[in-house]
Amino acid sequence: MIKSVHIVGARGRVGSAVSARLAERGVELDSAEPDIVLLCVPDRAIPEAAGATARGPWVAHVSGATPLAALDPHTRRFSVHPLQSFSKALGPEQLDGAWGAVTAEAPEAREVGRSLAETLGLRPFELADDARAAYHAGASMASNYLVTLRAAAGSLLEAASAPPEALDPLIRGVVETGFELTGPIARGDWETVERHLRVIREERPELEELYLVLAAATARVAGRDPAEVPA
Amino acid sequence: MIKSVHIVGARGRVGSAVSARLAERGVELDSAEPDIVLLCVPDRAIPEAAGATARGPWVAHVSGATPLAALDPHTRRFSVHPLQSFSKALGPEQLDGAWGAVTAEAPEAREVGRSLAETLGLRPFELADDARAAYHAGASMASNYLVTLRAAAGSLLEAASAPPEALDPLIRGVVETGFELTGPIARGDWETVERHLRVIREERPELEELYLVLAAATARVAGRDPAEVPA
Repeated sequence: MIKSVHIVGARGRVGSAVSARLAERGVELDSAEPDIVLLCVPDRAIPEAAGATARGPWVAHVSGATPLAALDPHTRRFSVHPLQSFSKALGPEQLDGAWGAVTAEAPEAREVGRSLAETLGLRPFELADDARAAYHAGASMASNYLVTLRAAAGSLLEAASAPPEALDPLIRGVVETGFELTGPIARGDWETVERHLRVIREERPELEELYLVLAAATARVAGRDPAEVPA
Repeated sequence: MIKSVHIVGARGRVGSAVSARLAERGVELDSAEPDIVLLCVPDRAIPEAAGATARGPWVAHVSGATPLAALDPHTRRFSVHPLQSFSKALGPEQLDGAWGAVTAEAPEAREVGRSLAETLGLRPFELADDARAAYHAGASMASNYLVTLRAAAGSLLEAASAPPEALDPLIRGVVETGFELTGPIARGDWETVERHLRVIREERPELEELYLVLAAATARVAGRDPAEVPA
């Protein structure tokens, strides 16, 4: 049972959601002797913030990419990374339903990390410290590249004088229906793909390479030979 | 006011959601003289289904890619394309909040198309018949390529022994927070990008090209020179 947490960086994007949630759960945030010091600071600032933290309590960070060694010299340490895209305009409800990657080097630390994740409303799972690079690459692709995909697709809707935001319920629907692959590439409808390519070359030539590389990857997901995709 | 619609293909992916919604709204579905014959059939089957439809009522299709000429010889015609990813496992609630592209050649047809879209619970917008290729390319990118992106990112989480489904609340969060670009590429953190590339080359080399092309496109979205991205 976590009674008190001192948050460093409580006004940041993650820190503000985390501190609001802990307050909701009755966790004390201004104790002079906290159970946990939680560093909600940018990745690069973690070593300095850890160095400035007195020994004694658990020390933890909320970064997905940063190894636990960044918390040196502390040994009572762990990390909890909430796998979510946070906005300061929203509150602690952003944590609801999100998963939390718990990294620890010892059973007791793992237990405290899971307990903190659950108190935050996260679904905890274990992440090995040396598996962070693959984990963070995947998380970055899913979140940042989705922004890029939406921008590219939105630009084609603009070319059609259609509202780009019409794509957003579609994107939600793809998530809700479990990422089922449909559409021209899934059914090998290369005429439609050729029509897409013609209009992209005319209206948005800067998107051609992106379209084609994703088409080949999509053909692979569909169990097709990517060489079938028209060039 | 639309009183009766005859649906061709009412058991299909779109047709089942559409017919359930129209029934909910009190629209008669088995009239001998319907106001509208709505073809909810695969794109390739539209000309034949249109040819088999007696003249008289409005004739419409629900395809995003198919021009109105596919409804020949009918001239009282339009199309309404619900921009959504439909699953047969779900019901008419899939239409709620989705947008509907209405294409028509005459004001009266446009009026009937908008009215049908609204009856279905869609937010109607106008789509020119000759803008379909750009529109459909954008819609396909947003939906099909999201499946590919999720598969690629999920494969990296698997490489980290993390649950791929942990990405789904993150993806929802990116939509909810309005596709704000964050992460290593946005802040020009090329060390992190290099770490991603190293682990991708080791664990999932088939994803390298996809990662790099999306990284360059993401750099452009961030207002950076794509040549900054490490290769």
